[in-house]
Amino acid sequence: MKALLKTEPQQGATLMDVPIPEIGPDDLLVKVQAAAICGTDNHIYDWTPWAQERLTLPMIFGHEYCGEVVQVGANVRGFVEGDMVAAETHIPCLQCHQCRTGRQHTCEQMKIIGVHVDGAFSEYARLPVACAWKLAPGTNPDLGAILEPIGVAANGLFKDRIDGASLAVIGCGPIGIFCAQLALAAGARRVFVTDVSEYRLEMARRIVPEATALNPARDDVRAAVDEATSGRGLDVVIELSGSGPGTAQAFDLLAKGGRVSLVGLPSQPITLEMTSAIIYREAVVYGSTGRLMWDTWYRVEGLLKEGKFDPLPVITHRFPMEEYAQALELTMSGNAGKVILYP
Amino acid sequence: MKALLKTEPQQGATLMDVPIPEIGPDDLLVKVQAAAICGTDNHIYDWTPWAQERLTLPMIFGHEYCGEVVQVGANVRGFVEGDMVAAETHIPCLQCHQCRTGRQHTCEQMKIIGVHVDGAFSEYARLPVACAWKLAPGTNPDLGAILEPIGVAANGLFKDRIDGASLAVIGCGPIGIFCAQLALAAGARRVFVTDVSEYRLEMARRIVPEATALNPARDDVRAAVDEATSGRGLDVVIELSGSGPGTAQAFDLLAKGGRVSLVGLPSQPITLEMTSAIIYREAVVYGSTGRLMWDTWYRVEGLLKEGKFDPLPVITHRFPMEEYAQALELTMSGNAGKVILYP
Amino acid sequence: MKALLKTEPQQGATLMDVPIPEIGPDDLLVKVQAAAICGTDNHIYDWTPWAQERLTLPMIFGHEYCGEVVQVGANVRGFVEGDMVAAETHIPCLQCHQCRTGRQHTCEQMKIIGVHVDGAFSEYARLPVACAWKLAPGTNPDLGAILEPIGVAANGLFKDRIDGASLAVIGCGPIGIFCAQLALAAGARRVFVTDVSEYRLEMARRIVPEATALNPARDDVRAAVDEATSGRGLDVVIELSGSGPGTAQAFDLLAKGGRVSLVGLPSQPITLEMTSAIIYREAVVYGSTGRLMWDTWYRVEGLLKEGKFDPLPVITHRFPMEEYAQALELTMSGNAGKVILYP
Amino acid sequence: MKALLKTEPQQGATLMDVPIPEIGPDDLLVKVQAAAICGTDNHIYDWTPWAQERLTLPMIFGHEYCGEVVQVGANVRGFVEGDMVAAETHIPCLQCHQCRTGRQHTCEQMKIIGVHVDGAFSEYARLPVACAWKLAPGTNPDLGAILEPIGVAANGLFKDRIDGASLAVIGCGPIGIFCAQLALAAGARRVFVTDVSEYRLEMARRIVPEATALNPARDDVRAAVDEATSGRGLDVVIELSGSGPGTAQAFDLLAKGGRVSLVGLPSQPITLEMTSAIIYREAVVYGSTGRLMWDTWYRVEGLLKEGKFDPLPVITHRFPMEEYAQALELTMSGNAGKVILYP
Repeated sequence: MKALLKTEPQQGATLMDVPIPEIGPDDLLVKVQAAAICGTDNHIYDWTPWAQERLTLPMIFGHEYCGEVVQVGANVRGFVEGDMVAAETHIPCLQCHQCRTGRQHTCEQMKIIGVHVDGAFSEYARLPVACAWKLAPGTNPDLGAILEPIGVAANGLFKDRIDGASLAVIGCGPIGIFCAQLALAAGARRVFVTDVSEYRLEMARRIVPEATALNPARDDVRAAVDEATSGRGLDVVIELSGSGPGTAQAFDLLAKGGRVSLVGLPSQPITLEMTSAIIYREAVVYGSTGRLMWDTWYRVEGLLKEGKFDPLPVITHRFPMEEYAQALELTMSGNAGKVILYP
Repeated sequence: MKALLKTEPQQGATLMDVPIPEIGPDDLLVKVQAAAICGTDNHIYDWTPWAQERLTLPMIFGHEYCGEVVQVGANVRGFVEGDMVAAETHIPCLQCHQCRTGRQHTCEQMKIIGVHVDGAFSEYARLPVACAWKLAPGTNPDLGAILEPIGVAANGLFKDRIDGASLAVIGCGPIGIFCAQLALAAGARRVFVTDVSEYRLEMARRIVPEATALNPARDDVRAAVDEATSGRGLDVVIELSGSGPGTAQAFDLLAKGGRVSLVGLPSQPITLEMTSAIIYREAVVYGSTGRLMWDTWYRVEGLLKEGKFDPLPVITHRFPMEEYAQALELTMSGNAGKVILYP
Repeated sequence: MKALLKTEPQQGATLMDVPIPEIGPDDLLVKVQAAAICGTDNHIYDWTPWAQERLTLPMIFGHEYCGEVVQVGANVRGFVEGDMVAAETHIPCLQCHQCRTGRQHTCEQMKIIGVHVDGAFSEYARLPVACAWKLAPGTNPDLGAILEPIGVAANGLFKDRIDGASLAVIGCGPIGIFCAQLALAAGARRVFVTDVSEYRLEMARRIVPEATALNPARDDVRAAVDEATSGRGLDVVIELSGSGPGTAQAFDLLAKGGRVSLVGLPSQPITLEMTSAIIYREAVVYGSTGRLMWDTWYRVEGLLKEGKFDPLPVITHRFPMEEYAQALELTMSGNAGKVILYP
Repeated sequence: MKALLKTEPQQGATLMDVPIPEIGPDDLLVKVQAAAICGTDNHIYDWTPWAQERLTLPMIFGHEYCGEVVQVGANVRGFVEGDMVAAETHIPCLQCHQCRTGRQHTCEQMKIIGVHVDGAFSEYARLPVACAWKLAPGTNPDLGAILEPIGVAANGLFKDRIDGASLAVIGCGPIGIFCAQLALAAGARRVFVTDVSEYRLEMARRIVPEATALNPARDDVRAAVDEATSGRGLDVVIELSGSGPGTAQAFDLLAKGGRVSLVGLPSQPITLEMTSAIIYREAVVYGSTGRLMWDTWYRVEGLLKEGKFDPLPVITHRFPMEEYAQALELTMSGNAGKVILYP
């Protein structure tokens, strides 16, 4: 089959023919219908230190995908050939304390699809059944491919209640826009999104016009929040930028007793005035990674089923797998929403 | 001033002239602009056992109201003449354990306006400052008069999160409709309302068309819920009927691990199959009374300020105070939404 | 092997020779070391309506047990021959919404060991690996056999925090005593236990002398609670009696805003003054069944490991399997704590 | 009366005669029986930047105190002459959103006793009734004087449940020891305390021998925690050091999904590897300041009343007010527990 591999410890990737994966008794073989490009894939393609520390080459990368089940492992129950599935990226061991208390997404021995084991920029992919989410027949494959990043937004957002909350999302790349959409769909009364990229702000304004989109480099975000909240600050802030200024602003916008979810991954240590940002404010802070298996997926499914939001406009570009280089460079430029590859 | 009093221990009430109330150092004197009729007022007018046990006559009744501050007690801070205020009905002692831990609405020595002390079916009313909620200048008095019952709905609804929830409201009188409106405004993904009164169901269909309105006497509510939830049941049910069948149905519609708020007040003991309704289901049940002071009020204010719902259509009739008998009989008939009296 | 079966639809049971169970790929074969008698076993032995509705005969009953793994199914990971295990009674399907959101104990297709499938009053038992809890080598088998009912107490108790709480346990059979022990071990500041059986009260006084043991038929429990709480009532009540008077008293003893866990299974509908018991009190009620898999088990393990409580004194009698009739009749008399059978 | 004032913007303080304070209608006049020295008082005495930014001189400082009510303001209800009271330090406005939703301790216009208004190192003190906590007659004044710092520990500790938790307290000055005592009293199953001061560790070992006291400069704290928790880490960590290394260690010791309360006030920004410390770990972080009014006070009172812990041994030194210089220098040396001054 055709697959996109990272073979060399340097920038780039290789599209080549490799054998169709063999599956084990607890796996599904999935014919990939659509795969989305994640920031992780950019790290791998670009061979950043993050990737260098984690990957053993060669490796098929790509992990946000959906497809059709074409083979079912001997022990698998609950899935049959022909089922359409989306992939959860985190492979849990199912035996550690985390896995045995409903927190498989923070498994003590977690493996990541497309990082530690072969992924899905390929015609077929091996999917451990512990990572398989069944889709309704006829689901748009583009939607199936982006459920995983929608889940990143949902996990951070739903760490605590947002019903009736005033809320800001710091960073409006694709996950930021999903976050704003989910927040409005699930009852936030007022939503701000911020970014320093005008491309992304425009994307936000187009897709989530109900949210107030501001550029902290030009707009006085704090003043806007103060006006909307009578000077009180926001109930909830979702931090997606992973940056020092973004993190500082998350707390600066926050009401006393408010909640911040930290979702964006800082590549550097963050320096913060803990006393004013967190302690005197009695802020509550949640670290958020991955998606609750499967609570997050059910929540998103429920909102989609009732038509509460439409994430498809966040997909701005689509390419055949062969044009992978163009697709990956586009995502690295920051001037794109979600980008889909079709094998 | 003109006031509507309960003077005799029998059906009826008397509109008469009485002195304007004198206020104490911790009170406001309010010129009443609009007052809404509550079920409690029907009990008092009708002189039911509920009223007989509680009232010492004579008593001005009526407690859902708003108006303008015309006099301010010596100790009062934060309010001035000319302020527009709505009234919280529960008068807290401010000294018991409940009051001193943020739960004044369940004060150990609570008094109720219009039940234990003179109320507001009158031109002027004495309002303890501990019960005063300041309104923005220019607020529609009709809106101010119904914030208290909207708060009854909000307190029950927001006992726990509803963001993204599937939800039913058992009983769609005015509070049920407020509840459905608030649920949709604050992110419930799917809302059912039920009632045995066709008048009320029609009112619900007109005012909250996004909700599915069903009559358990004719419709298979459980089947409708099962279809909407793939047989799982609902995340949240708000019980407003105070009836045995309504309470049983609340649990019957509930998903395992789901939540019921009991808000409607049964006049009789309720008999329930606890094992299947609550225990095997691991249901969570919240008793709900009054409104959190002032968390509930802030939540409702926030949603109103952002235009998330419009409760005014729930007001179906308006009368001058002189037509009190017609107004009270109308509300007792059940064929009305909220009814407003103007002094 | 020797096994105790229910073969006839009438009172009694039969000890007979049957084949050692064959196990499937997801099962363990366990050599039973100790099995405790549960109230469920009394229902089965006595052939009550509860048992008649559930069992298909013949059936080996008994489900509270531990033993040594002597054979491991082909798909099993994480267990090897020689491991010592205790059994979780609830067999989850692992595929429904409940199972996939960390609530396997309320699985939509749940089967119960010793009720729907053969249990463990026998020399060997088939244990689905989804129900296996590994014990430290050298664990006292008596302790292993009672972890399941300790977990019943723990699940009800830990539905919400008890740190620093005042608390009552209504009903002090073995689970009630476990509950009082766990409450004291985990930080309740004051514990009451009640029962109408003097035998059980004596058992409570002997095993948990720090708790105040009262007989509602003779003692004024409410007065004692009022004295201890300055008239406020208790933060938490655990209802284990499953009776109407016990349930009514649970709420009567409760502070405003307090929490009741309903654990005891009423065999009849319960009639309750909802308005005063739950609604005006703003009580929070949790239905509780089984044990969280595996959060409850970890909590209990953690407390045992630190020596915070000793449940072994709750075991009052031990019998060889052959004396099953004497053992079962003893438990049905109510004049016993936990009773252990050894195959 | 005799009072200890900060009069000059430099190190030191002055004991002098000043008029007895006049009280307003919402105040109590308290004859001070005992006052404890807080780290804040050291800042004031030492005239650090923290103090320079906050105080307007002259100012009577000292705020942890108790005494007898000798005069009652005209509007005060619930207190009479002869009552014994302890002081809450945070003076709430009672009118802002925070104050009106049960969070007076984070009032938007908060004033601090002994910082913004005259405090209690004096024979008499003015106490706003909103800050008065009534003590049982005959309470040991030493205990009354330290309830405020015990409350600092309690607020951080009880941000979420600790029943059955494994827990560490970073920093074992007086508040750290109170924290360890409260944790053990309220059901933590295993408690570690750490400090770099051997004096403080010895104090901890003497007063809370059930806790494991370690010096991170010499002991491998992580290894000890790993051994106690099978490598999992702790459920809860309370950070009291306000230092960078202490904060980093708080997270390093924490289990996935665990909780940190930040209580110690860093004087500098803290630099933290957010990704590993908080995000991948899905940690929950609570900022904690002051004490919930009055939930925290009730919790502590309840535990004290049941004899669950004894904080008095944390008081290591007692001085007459005249020896204030010796007392303040002793506390600044770090070689003391709580130090009490008697006016």
